[in-house]
This record gives sequence, C-alpha cells and structure tokens, in this order.
Amino acid sequence: MPVYKAPVEDTMFVLYDVLKMESYGNLPGFSDAPRDLVEAVVSEGAKFCEEVIQPLNVVGDEIGCKRNEDGSVTTPPGFKDAYKQYCEGGWLSLAFDPAYGGQGLPVTVNAIVGEFLSSANLAWGMYPGLTQGAMAALHVHANDEIKSLYLPKMATGQWTGTMNLTEPHCGTDLGMLRTKAVPNGDGSYRISGQKIFISAGEHDMSDNIIHLVLARIEGAPQGTKGISLFVVPKFIPGADGEAGKRNPVSCGKIEEKMGIHGNATCVMNYDEATGWLVGQENKGLNAMFVMMNEARMSVGIQGLSQSEVAYQNAVAYAKDRIQGRSLSGPKSPEKQADPIIVHPDVRRTLMSIRAINEAGRALVLWTALQADVSHRSEDAAERQKAEDHMGLMTPIVKGVLTDLGFDNAVKAQQMYGGHGYISEWGMSQFVRDARITMIYEGANGIQALDLVGRKLGAHGGRAVMAFFNEVGTFCAQSKDDAALAPFVGSLSKGLKDLQAATMWFMQNALAKPDNAGAGSTPYMHLFGLVAMGFMWGRMAKAAQDKLAEGADERMTAKLATARFFFEQLMPESSVYLARVTAGADSMMALPAEAF
Amino acid sequence: MPVYKAPVEDTMFVLYDVLKMESYGNLPGFSDAPRDLVEAVVSEGAKFCEEVIQPLNVVGDEIGCKRNEDGSVTTPPGFKDAYKQYCEGGWLSLAFDPAYGGQGLPVTVNAIVGEFLSSANLAWGMYPGLTQGAMAALHVHANDEIKSLYLPKMATGQWTGTMNLTEPHCGTDLGMLRTKAVPNGDGSYRISGQKIFISAGEHDMSDNIIHLVLARIEGAPQGTKGISLFVVPKFIPGADGEAGKRNPVSCGKIEEKMGIHGNATCVMNYDEATGWLVGQENKGLNAMFVMMNEARMSVGIQGLSQSEVAYQNAVAYAKDRIQGRSLSGPKSPEKQADPIIVHPDVRRTLMSIRAINEAGRALVLWTALQADVSHRSEDAAERQKAEDHMGLMTPIVKGVLTDLGFDNAVKAQQMYGGHGYISEWGMSQFVRDARITMIYEGANGIQALDLVGRKLGAHGGRAVMAFFNEVGTFCAQSKDDAALAPFVGSLSKGLKDLQAATMWFMQNALAKPDNAGAGSTPYMHLFGLVAMGFMWGRMAKAAQDKLAEGADERMTAKLATARFFFEQLMPESSVYLARVTAGADSMMALPAEAF
Repeated sequence: MPVYKAPVEDTMFVLYDVLKMESYGNLPGFSDAPRDLVEAVVSEGAKFCEEVIQPLNVVGDEIGCKRNEDGSVTTPPGFKDAYKQYCEGGWLSLAFDPAYGGQGLPVTVNAIVGEFLSSANLAWGMYPGLTQGAMAALHVHANDEIKSLYLPKMATGQWTGTMNLTEPHCGTDLGMLRTKAVPNGDGSYRISGQKIFISAGEHDMSDNIIHLVLARIEGAPQGTKGISLFVVPKFIPGADGEAGKRNPVSCGKIEEKMGIHGNATCVMNYDEATGWLVGQENKGLNAMFVMMNEARMSVGIQGLSQSEVAYQNAVAYAKDRIQGRSLSGPKSPEKQADPIIVHPDVRRTLMSIRAINEAGRALVLWTALQADVSHRSEDAAERQKAEDHMGLMTPIVKGVLTDLGFDNAVKAQQMYGGHGYISEWGMSQFVRDARITMIYEGANGIQALDLVGRKLGAHGGRAVMAFFNEVGTFCAQSKDDAALAPFVGSLSKGLKDLQAATMWFMQNALAKPDNAGAGSTPYMHLFGLVAMGFMWGRMAKAAQDKLAEGADERMTAKLATARFFFEQLMPESSVYLARVTAGADSMMALPAEAF
Repeated sequence: MPVYKAPVEDTMFVLYDVLKMESYGNLPGFSDAPRDLVEAVVSEGAKFCEEVIQPLNVVGDEIGCKRNEDGSVTTPPGFKDAYKQYCEGGWLSLAFDPAYGGQGLPVTVNAIVGEFLSSANLAWGMYPGLTQGAMAALHVHANDEIKSLYLPKMATGQWTGTMNLTEPHCGTDLGMLRTKAVPNGDGSYRISGQKIFISAGEHDMSDNIIHLVLARIEGAPQGTKGISLFVVPKFIPGADGEAGKRNPVSCGKIEEKMGIHGNATCVMNYDEATGWLVGQENKGLNAMFVMMNEARMSVGIQGLSQSEVAYQNAVAYAKDRIQGRSLSGPKSPEKQADPIIVHPDVRRTLMSIRAINEAGRALVLWTALQADVSHRSEDAAERQKAEDHMGLMTPIVKGVLTDLGFDNAVKAQQMYGGHGYISEWGMSQFVRDARITMIYEGANGIQALDLVGRKLGAHGGRAVMAFFNEVGTFCAQSKDDAALAPFVGSLSKGLKDLQAATMWFMQNALAKPDNAGAGSTPYMHLFGLVAMGFMWGRMAKAAQDKLAEGADERMTAKLATARFFFEQLMPESSVYLARVTAGADSMMALPAEAF
C-alpha cells in the first residue's frame, strides 16, 4: 500500500523562515492565527489526511462511484463516513467568513490542508474542494437572501456544491453554451439543458447538492455576453431552510475515465429545474471567474500534491529495493545488492521531483499569502499589488505545477520498473489521477493563453514588472553573498531570459497575435521556472541563515537541493526563450489539410 | 472510435528517397525484394492492421484477458481469430530464415509492419512480437535438434514464444535470479521457480507456448556467470513433433495493470518443468541478449507507434472540434467557431509530435537496414560497421522513442481536453499502453547506462566516432546549400553539444563513474536528438531534391516540419549538455536518509 506523510516541517519552514508569515500579523484575522496555532492546525490536518483520508485512496480507485438505476450515485466504501468526520472537524470552512459559520483563518492555511488532502486522496478531496469554490462564488456575487439560505449549510458541509460550465459541444468556448433559463416571474428561472464533466455532480455524501450553473436567459445576447449564473439546488430549500422538494436536475450518466475514479464525473440533465440568478443578468462569466481563480489555484495544488505523494513512495521503494551495485563500489556489502538509491540516475530522478515539489510549495504559499493580503489588507495599494500577483500567478501555478506534477508522478512510477505499471503498488493511480489536473479548470494551453494574452499586458504590464523588480532586487542584494552567488547567477540568467521573452512578445506579438499564441506554453513554463528559481533563492537564503545559527541537516539538504535546481533545471530557460523567439511561422506554415 | 491509417507513403519516402534502399540490392535476399514488392507487402500489411487488428484495440483494453480457474487464460473477443488470419497471411515469419519456413525478407520490412501492428493494437502485437524474439534467440543459439523441432512450428505461428527473465526480487539485476535447473541425466533439466511479468505467458491463441527461461543450473556460480538459458515448452513435443504431454509450467496469476490489458502479463510457476539447454551452460545471458536487442528495437518501435496513432487521432479531433476563433481573425466564419487546429498552441503540439514521429521512423528504418547489413553482408568490414551502428542505436531507439512516444501520447490526449480523459474517445488507452514501453525490456534508465557505460567506449569508441563522422560529413557537404543551411547550422550546433558531452565523459567519468551514471539519461536524449536531427537533415535534402523535380505538397510539408524541428526541438541540446557537464555532485550530496 502506498504511504503518505504530510510535509508539515517543510511547510512551516516556508511559511515562517522564508515567507516570514509573522510579518503579516497586521492583517485582520492574522493576529488570531499566531505561529503555534497555525502549526497546531496544520499538524492536525496532516494527521487527519494521513489517517482518515489516505487509506481510502486505493479503494476509491478500484471501486469507484456507481450510478444506480434511480439516478442516485453511491461513492466508494468509507467516503461518506470520512466526509462526516471532515465536516465535524470543521475543515471545510477553515478560511471561510465567520458571518456564515466559517473560522476566518488565512486562506494560506486552507491551501496547506488542501495540499495534504489532495496528496492523501485527490478524488475524495474534490468533493469539499468544489464546495469551497461554490461558496466563494456565492459569497462574492449572490444577494443576501441566497447567501443566508445556502452558505451556512455549505459551511458545515451539510450541503455540497458543484460548478456547471461545460456542455458537450463547448468547453473552453463558453460563448457557445445552450443551457437555457426562462423567468418564472417570481424571481426564479426554469433551467433546461445538459452539462457534462460535472465533478461531484451527484453523490451520497451530503443532504443537498448546490449546483452553480451557467445558462443563457431567453432572449439574451449570443456569445459570452449573454451568459448568467444560477444557483440550482438538488432539493429546493423549504420555508424552514431545510432541503425540501426535489428539483428536476439529475445525473444521467457517470463517465468512465482514466483516473479520479472516487469522484463522480456526471452528465447533469436540467429539465426545467428551478434556479435563482447569482449576480447580474448576463454577467455570469464574471461571477464564475471568482470561482475559477480559486479553483485554478486549487488544481495547481493538486498537481503538486500528486508529485509529493508519488515522490514519497518512490523514495521508500528506492531505499528498500536492492538491485545492482553502486558504480563507486558496494554500499551494502552485507546484502546481495545495494538499494537502488545509490544509483546516480535514480538520484537524478528523485532530486528532480524534490526540487520541483519544494519550490512549488513555496510558490503556492507565497501566492496564497497574497490572496490573504488581497482579501484582508486595509491598504488599497497593498491590496492591488497582491491582486496583481494573484492574477499573474494563477495560470502559472495551475499550468506549471500540474504539467510538472504529472511528469513527476510518471518519473516516480518509473523508479518501480515493472512494479510501477501494475496496480499492486499504487503508482499508476498517482499518474492517472494527476493527469486530470492538466485538463480541468481550463486546459493548460488555456492557462498559457490567459498568462500571455491577458495577464501580461494588464494595467500596462504592472504585475509582471513588479515581479521582475522583486526578483531582480533579490539577485542584486544576494550576489555578493559567496554562498548564494552561484545560485543567484543562475537565477539572474533565468530572469534575463524571461525578460527577453517578454520583450520579444511586446515587439512581435501585437502586430501578429499568432506569435503570442505560439509562444504561450514555453513562456508559461519559463515564467514558472524563474518563479520557482526565485523561491529556491529565497529558500537557500533562509536555509543559510538557519545554518548560521547551528547545524541542521534539513537545511543542509535544502542547500543541496537548491544547487541541484540551479545546475540541472534552471538551464531550461534558454530553450524556452529559443522557442518563444522562433515565432509562429514554423507552426502555421502548413495548411490544415497537410496534417 | 479511434482511427488509424498506416503511414505507407511516409515509409516509402524514407526507404527509397532518404535511405536509398535500392542501393542495398547487393545484399543476399534484397534482390528478391525490389521496390514494388516491398511496397506491395507494406501496403498489404497496412490494410491488415487497419482492418483486422485495429478494430480490436478498444475491446482488448476494456475486456482484457481473464485467467480461468484451471489456470488457462482467455484473450479478448476477436484476438484469436485475428491471430489465425495473421498467421495465414505469413506475417509472423516475413523476415525469418527460409530454412525454417520463413520468407527471408529484409528485417526492415518486418520493422515497418511491426510499427503498423503496434499502432493498430499494441497489446495484440506483443503475442507475435515475443514469438519473433524467441525465434531469433533459438535461431542463433540453439542446437539443430531444438531448431528443427521448434522453429518451423513457431514460424507458422502455430506455437508462440515468451521471454522469462524477471523474478519478484530481481529485474535489472539478473545476477540474483533463483530459478533452478537440475539435470535429468538425459540432456534435459527440471526447472523450478517463479517468473513474473511474463507477457503472453499463457493464452488461448496457439497450440503450444514455448518459454525461454533463464535459470541457474544446480551448483553453477552465483551472479550473472551462473545463468543458463532453457527452452521450456508448455506441451512437450512428442516423437511426431506435435505438442504432447503437459509440462508443469503454469500461469498462477494475471497482473492488474495500467494498460496493455489485451496482453496477459503472467506470473509463471515452474514446478520441475522439463527444459532443454539453449547454447552453453552458464552463458544464458549472452544468448538472451540476442533476443533482448531485437526486443529493444521492437519496443522503441512500439513507442513510435503509440505516438503515431495518438497523433492521427489528435489531428482528426483538431480539425473537427470547433472552439474559439483564430487569433488572426475567423477562419470558418460560417460556423459558430473555428476548428481548434487554427490555434498556434494546438499547432505547436501537433507539429512537435509529427516532427518526432517522422524522424523516429527514419531512425528506426535506418537502424533496421543496418541490421539487415549486419546479418547479410558478405563484407566483414561492412558487417562490423553495421553491428557497431546497431549496438549504439539500440538503447537510443528504445529509450528515446519510448520516452517521447509516451510524452507525445499525453500531448495528443491533451488536445481533447476533458474528452481525452474519459474512455469514450480512446486517447487514454494510447497513454496507458505507451507507458509500458518506457519500462519493459530494460527500463529507460538502464538503456541510458547501456549507452554510456558499454556502447560509448566499446572498441575505443569506434561506433560513436563513426556516427560523429557521418553526421559531420553531412553537415560539411550541405552547409553551402542555401535551402539546407539553416537546418545544418542547427544540426551542427547539436552535434557540437553531443561531442562536448562525450568528451566530458572521457575526461570526468573514468576516475569517477558516478559522473557517467549521473549524465546518462540526458546524454541518451542528447544523442537521440542529434540522431533525429540527422534524419531531418537527410529528409530535408531528399524533399528538396524531389521538389526540384516538381511541386509536391508532401515534400513542402516535410520541409516545414524540418524547420519546426530545428527551430523548436534542436535547441534542447544545450540543456542536455549543461546537465551532463554539471556532474554527479548535486545528486550524490545528500545521504540516503535525507530523502
């Protein structure tokens, strides 16, 4: 059976030694979350994920969800009971508004528990994850009546939530959606249409399921300008606020899929189901974007989570499996062979994954802290800066951490040889589960376009300039530090490549947008690499500071991993730059028929 | 349902316009295989794979193999009947020795049909593929009695074959194997032990299954020096040469695995089964290597095959699926959206896969032709040169084409968005099936070690020097050709990086072998990149020559794809070089406990 131990120590190092979370103590709510409380919550979350949620991962994969003849869906054995424990522990509303029953902790803390939860069981974690997304959208956009009716029940987990965007003929291009809303005259609407790929669309874990649904009000404009957001409960709340009459929304089918078998991916049929408008008419996409940004961050964290748990299992196997001898002479002469962790190529694999995981975690937490600042700061300039950062980093965290998360799960699986391919060891599940994270909440190509087409130029490039400035300042301040100099040299080179790629877009993509599209994916990865490099620079500095206070094996390991990152991974920046600056011509030369 | 059309035209272009197969006409047997015959065989093979084998791919995945209570194994519906047709068509022994019923065609032709077969249905193709491997080992190493008894029956496909190497505690490190052979005194042995991961170990498609088994004769030395190879038939041939008495070798279990469900991956239990020695006592590994080299080439072809079929399906979807508008203005204004093939990022994906597939195919066929030369040439120097090439390229074809084949299947799946993740469209199968090719017949890390640790230095680096010389000569001859110059410039840079990496090993790996191990995987990929670049150089030249004879859209597309390769993929060479020359220190710094 696969193992998992939540990385509590590493998380605390990033939060307090690298990101100096205590310096955010002036933010409302942060004073209620001092270091010892955060550590206690994170440790408790770790324990819950390791002991209650992780043991259900394999069973979720093997048994999966079943749709019954009456359209109800049965989740894998143990899922429902674990969900009850999760709700009782208050995990669902850790960072939610206390006005609706939440605990008001930093979203950073919620992101941490989110990583642990997804590592333990990605498919399981999606049920509360989607509920949190739906709560966020309602909290920002719904009127008070809807909020009071739904949010308290969702905050306890008694009711869960979903996102309904995709239809069979439209995913990315929501402007084509056909689901229809007809006013009933009493403020409610009749919703009809079919939605597909609805995660947690139907299940047996909660008393009610609150669907957020994009639909077009009869007579609304075509395209994205005619889309509205509705709340459509499975059971319509009665006068007592409890789940009442069944609404005609039902699960027509569960998809057979490559992974996340423990989550029910439903075809949802709306047959004049009653719904209520959330936010303004025809402004549904704006409302959905709140949910989508939260969701994209969460999916980036899911990518990291699979990389982390796959890494831990690869390490366990590499220490245990004996095969062959070290190239530099036997390391376990008493055994018939050495454990495979002696082999440099095995080390390369493990170090590659580790270097990404630790940087990815720092990137997530840095960005999550900015989310807290953007929600809580009383200083408008500080809020704006934090929002800029969030907007810029969301596609990078989603696109890069999921691409790399999948690659890393594959690398970890490879450590097992043939044993990685069979079900017995569980490595295939990490790969198959990680695969979805590159696709949902906007396939990674869309994240790259969001970065290059929207985020880069927003407000005259304010966000990206701030990032360049921050990294550049770090490099300038650290270049004379002998221990950091080699790292900073590598980071500076990466930053230079990123700036050159950015400049190339400015000069070549305005007149010819295909150049932006052609370079978007390599640019996103270049940006992610530099952002992770910046995290490694800061982590190395923090590690060195701690080592100055006394020997610490974990900090020695941090520096070794930083070195690996800068020697082995950072050089990729030049390839991404070459890809961007080669432009679109070689891609667009062929007529479509020639493919 | 997924589509597949075998790339006959591209294959013929590579064979005759690039590799000038007609210039090999002096080889024994080649004069019997003029261009029109090769084209007829290849086209017939294409048709058979498209019409008979490909339609069984999805059913093989969904239904898989079942082990029955009596230990027999039932293959998916249609598999057995297709196998009958395959045997009747003589496909199994296309390139086999006519003395035993083969048709003696070039192995190059067999490699082509092998690609088509694997694209059509990887799991199905493994049954005859393993038989061909076993036939090759018996042909080279068994005595005449064994050859006459087994080979004619295997050549017709009436009996199939397997390879039995792996045991639960040993895969790569065969020196630890425990399966035991005890002489019966009559020239036969009693074989006892357990083998795992035995593809096609038990099934219902043939009358007999001929297992080639590595075992240790009682009293033989420990380690690899005490391993012998045995032939162990499921049914012992009687005096009439037909399958007779059941031998106590049986399938104890079929593994549940990530893909290739249509092939039975068996745990095989040998309980004093009767076997006969193949080749010399304690020289089993040498004998097995014949089989392994053939098998490694075939697995490289399997990697290519999944990339090709996944590409074809991604193209079909990209032309059909409408979503969003071209960045340069609507391309299908009459529709609600443009087909996604208008988007540069989609183009990047498709071109990346295509550029690898076409170069990979050329690399395979170039190497297969060298195999023919090495088997058939009457000139010893020519044979030696061809053998050098084969030895050098085998790990590269296996390791690089399977790593890239899997990556490409993932990329192709990504084109489908959420539809790629569900079973309905069949893209997940290509990914899951391709995944095994990186693992079996020596995990790719082992291929890299074989390249760096054995092939590079063999005979004073003769093979690698010949390769450098051949590529260098091509570059020198083509650099003044204006149309080829940009490609040649890129190829020369790649070659320079490869030579620098090779030189670095010479200077840094002898005294410190960990440096060789640490750089082996990037070096293998660097080598593969340059080898594919060389293929692109030659293909571009051939395309240009054909264009000089008149307009040809396929040749225009070749040049466009060459440009894409050199602009977008060749720049990776600098990263691989940086990885090699950074050395082992950053990987080996941490004590094992720190992981």
